[in-house]
Amino acid sequence: MRFSKSLIPTLKETPAEAEVVSHRLLLRAGFIRKLTAGIYTYLPLGLAAIRKVEQIVREEMTRAGAQELLMPMVQPADLWHETGRYKKYGPELLRFVDRHDRESCLGPTHEEVITDLARREIRSYRDLPMNLYQIQTKFRDEIRPRFGLMRGREFIMKDAYSFDVDDSTAEESYQCMYDAYKRIFTRCGLEYRPVEADSGTIGGSFSHEFMVLADTGEDTLVICSGCDYAANSEKAVVAAPGRDESPMLPLEKMETPGKRKVSAVCEFMGISPKELVKTMVYKAGEEAVAVLVRGDREVQEVKLKNFLGVVDVEMLDDKDVFAATGVPTGYLGPVGIKVKLLVDNEVAAMCNFVVGANEKNHHLKNVNMGRDFEPFGVADLRQITVDDPCPVCGGVLTMKEGIEVGHVFKLGTGYSKAMNAVFQDSDGQDKPMVMGCYGIGVSRIVAAAIEQNHDENGMIFPMPLAPMQVIVLNLGLKNEQITGAAEALYRDLEEKGIDVLLDDRDERPGSKFKDADLLGIPLRLTVGKRLTQDGVIELRSRRDGKVEELAPQQVVARVRELIEAAMING
Amino acid sequence: MRFSKSLIPTLKETPAEAEVVSHRLLLRAGFIRKLTAGIYTYLPLGLAAIRKVEQIVREEMTRAGAQELLMPMVQPADLWHETGRYKKYGPELLRFVDRHDRESCLGPTHEEVITDLARREIRSYRDLPMNLYQIQTKFRDEIRPRFGLMRGREFIMKDAYSFDVDDSTAEESYQCMYDAYKRIFTRCGLEYRPVEADSGTIGGSFSHEFMVLADTGEDTLVICSGCDYAANSEKAVVAAPGRDESPMLPLEKMETPGKRKVSAVCEFMGISPKELVKTMVYKAGEEAVAVLVRGDREVQEVKLKNFLGVVDVEMLDDKDVFAATGVPTGYLGPVGIKVKLLVDNEVAAMCNFVVGANEKNHHLKNVNMGRDFEPFGVADLRQITVDDPCPVCGGVLTMKEGIEVGHVFKLGTGYSKAMNAVFQDSDGQDKPMVMGCYGIGVSRIVAAAIEQNHDENGMIFPMPLAPMQVIVLNLGLKNEQITGAAEALYRDLEEKGIDVLLDDRDERPGSKFKDADLLGIPLRLTVGKRLTQDGVIELRSRRDGKVEELAPQQVVARVRELIEAAMING
Repeated sequence: MRFSKSLIPTLKETPAEAEVVSHRLLLRAGFIRKLTAGIYTYLPLGLAAIRKVEQIVREEMTRAGAQELLMPMVQPADLWHETGRYKKYGPELLRFVDRHDRESCLGPTHEEVITDLARREIRSYRDLPMNLYQIQTKFRDEIRPRFGLMRGREFIMKDAYSFDVDDSTAEESYQCMYDAYKRIFTRCGLEYRPVEADSGTIGGSFSHEFMVLADTGEDTLVICSGCDYAANSEKAVVAAPGRDESPMLPLEKMETPGKRKVSAVCEFMGISPKELVKTMVYKAGEEAVAVLVRGDREVQEVKLKNFLGVVDVEMLDDKDVFAATGVPTGYLGPVGIKVKLLVDNEVAAMCNFVVGANEKNHHLKNVNMGRDFEPFGVADLRQITVDDPCPVCGGVLTMKEGIEVGHVFKLGTGYSKAMNAVFQDSDGQDKPMVMGCYGIGVSRIVAAAIEQNHDENGMIFPMPLAPMQVIVLNLGLKNEQITGAAEALYRDLEEKGIDVLLDDRDERPGSKFKDADLLGIPLRLTVGKRLTQDGVIELRSRRDGKVEELAPQQVVARVRELIEAAMING
Repeated sequence: MRFSKSLIPTLKETPAEAEVVSHRLLLRAGFIRKLTAGIYTYLPLGLAAIRKVEQIVREEMTRAGAQELLMPMVQPADLWHETGRYKKYGPELLRFVDRHDRESCLGPTHEEVITDLARREIRSYRDLPMNLYQIQTKFRDEIRPRFGLMRGREFIMKDAYSFDVDDSTAEESYQCMYDAYKRIFTRCGLEYRPVEADSGTIGGSFSHEFMVLADTGEDTLVICSGCDYAANSEKAVVAAPGRDESPMLPLEKMETPGKRKVSAVCEFMGISPKELVKTMVYKAGEEAVAVLVRGDREVQEVKLKNFLGVVDVEMLDDKDVFAATGVPTGYLGPVGIKVKLLVDNEVAAMCNFVVGANEKNHHLKNVNMGRDFEPFGVADLRQITVDDPCPVCGGVLTMKEGIEVGHVFKLGTGYSKAMNAVFQDSDGQDKPMVMGCYGIGVSRIVAAAIEQNHDENGMIFPMPLAPMQVIVLNLGLKNEQITGAAEALYRDLEEKGIDVLLDDRDERPGSKFKDADLLGIPLRLTVGKRLTQDGVIELRSRRDGKVEELAPQQVVARVRELIEAAMING
């Protein structure tokens, strides 16, 4: 395409609204424009990058035996009532009534629709396994959409759904998608990591996320340096410690005037936070729940949600804590507490610890579970840390930030049972189909690629995702030889099926160099004075800055060679 | 693809819900399934047909210099308030509030969004002309969605928008799209006709529709056999006749007991319907309006809407006519009528005609406009007929049914002025951009192609739109030679980039032949007993039933030859 005829509105200034680098660069490079909160128009280059991702996804889904279809964005609420998710999904599910007052919603995901299709069209075990996917625009009414394409409200997703006769073939379908995902992210040219993950509102028994490693990622990954273990820290299991069998000392009440924070209490009492247990109060559904964790630990809310089987938990503020417990924050403790009490594994193994006395300005010393209080439940409820051992091999853990770009779920029969999606098995019996579901954030991959590949001058696209593979700079619009060579090069590259942008704008060379860097196009060809003086065209790699000087007739072959070398076969 | 592994749920029965042939066949052939009223899932073959249309559209839009982008489906109401369409559009615009109570809507079209983009990104005359398009899912909350993909609520559309510095270049942009559309529909293999059209709710000064000719079309086209004139009958101008200059006779009141219908009054009075004038009453906005047309004519409601400048008109029922006029239906007339009165050109030229007397059981004779009543307005308000002369050359008209698959509009500056989308012209002045907009019903094209191309056995796809170009029937699953040959053929055809479906199902030959016909795949290869007996594979053309017997090694070359011959270059 010709820069002069294209809508590539590059910006010199960094837009104030953008918080992360991909968002800033996507705006500055003219790839996207915001329409309203969390909703973007993909301009020509932004769309071209998305199409590159889609093509890779499509090829690998086909190779994995999945069939492409396309489901609607507007869905009837009836189906969501059948699975109970109409109530459960929360306000991210955008609901409305149509002109005939029928309850409807904008699809944030398509388990209900695909299960409805499966129960109507799949009759027999002979039709299974089946894997159906689509690449489609989704809508989730995020409360705080942010980071551009990283967490928008409207976004492009590939979602696939597998149907199997039993757990064992469902496992094979899962593994097949897991392998396809590895090929997809490898072919995209991304540094990524599959990790064990929480299943969230999709439900199901087991899942993996595919994480692009980048400092700006919203997720924290736990990776073992000794074995293959890798997990989202939301999910990472903390090994339960052995019980401290020291003799129990007599319970003591201490005056701790004005000492509300862990640090203040520890300093005042001359103890370490490891000897103190804090009591955190959450709202879970309509109920208040207290959780005990060691003074230096944090509650992992996803673990808490899963333990309680609720969609969301929220930490109570001081006022609501007082309303629920009758105790001012800072002096809460398990002994005699009025709300449901959960205890982290680590605390359950402790002996003679300090807690709040449920009385202003007082704490209790030498507290012991069993003797002094009885919990409602004991579980792994805290956030893992780098000090914890790997739950598989006991090795040393490291933590990295990641961006979730893919997620595979073993759903089991939750949806098929709720919606009566059965097939007739070879034994003549009706059985629920065993399902899996598999998502890829297509538009998010473009953002993640930029988060992982950029420098101070702009994006650095991996070749497989680059909307344009080559940019040709014409630095002598009025010079016949230069313009002739640039135009010939543009034509020849296009003819070879290479995605090429010709910068034929009436702009200073400095602007052209700056924009070429900003756009992140992997290869840059400069046609300027060096051609008229030395017969040379300059080929520069965006990633490493390496420059080659080529005779005009060498250029196309060399560019093709470099592109082929940079494409990855998975 | 392999039939046995694909979701192609063909039906033997015709689904009761389907009224038109394309709807019936799309369901029977397993191309689509209904999710809810007017909303369909595109199954693999249905989606493949849509992708064929998209590819042709994309290639021709690129060739015409248009750039592809992708705009959101969810749009903020603010923009629609700016153009006044939030009020004007009616209930087809699906409106809702998001979780933050922001008024939003599902995009039925994107004039507002693209004009907003243009005003922010286009600064100078040097940026123009520009033509931006997208292929995207639209939603229009049709009151009576029907006919499957012909008139759904959710559908896939290509919409393009052009921006120009003045009327003359806008005219060139319009012509460029007009030509691109001709290439697109020609390449699709459709018999179509561009016709002059009404601009509807999009607004603007001038437009053409591209109509696929088919008996089941919802639109009626008027085509001149003497010149190039062709128009949607909604729009077709009726030439005003010369005035009848006979002397006016004295007005007479006649008793016409119980004679309410045109035919009854004419019979009773011994006159022709051409001597009688009927009075039709409509609701236009909040107002009742009466329209006079000759007894044998029909009011053209689109002409009426345009004359009145309202979004919609609706004929009143007897009760509401009485409420508005105080006269029972059947005896209405212009003399002394209490509502706004419009007169069709033809009636304005008549002399001494018969009308209702605005009194039960009475009519008036020898009525004359000007002497007996004064109209609010006189205009071309009736439906054209085959008896009317061509408004351009006076030649003989014919009428055909058509399906609208494309529409091009000259919008002018309506949107750019309302939204202040200005550019700086070469004279330094800010001027509103001159716009055009151009739609293609991508999913509707698939339905229209079927309406135009089918027989009693199923669809007959034009090669360019066929989701699969060839079907290979393996009629000897247990015979090694037959299965080997069928599999080899399948592999060889796929390798050549041909879209091929292998019917490897364990079904009787009769079922396979039936399904091959139903799916409308242009070429069928039968691998069966004739191979083992005579070394022959049968190649049959779906459209004309012509059969060729080929040796296995001839098949691929012959198939390629036939496909190439059937593709159209536009």
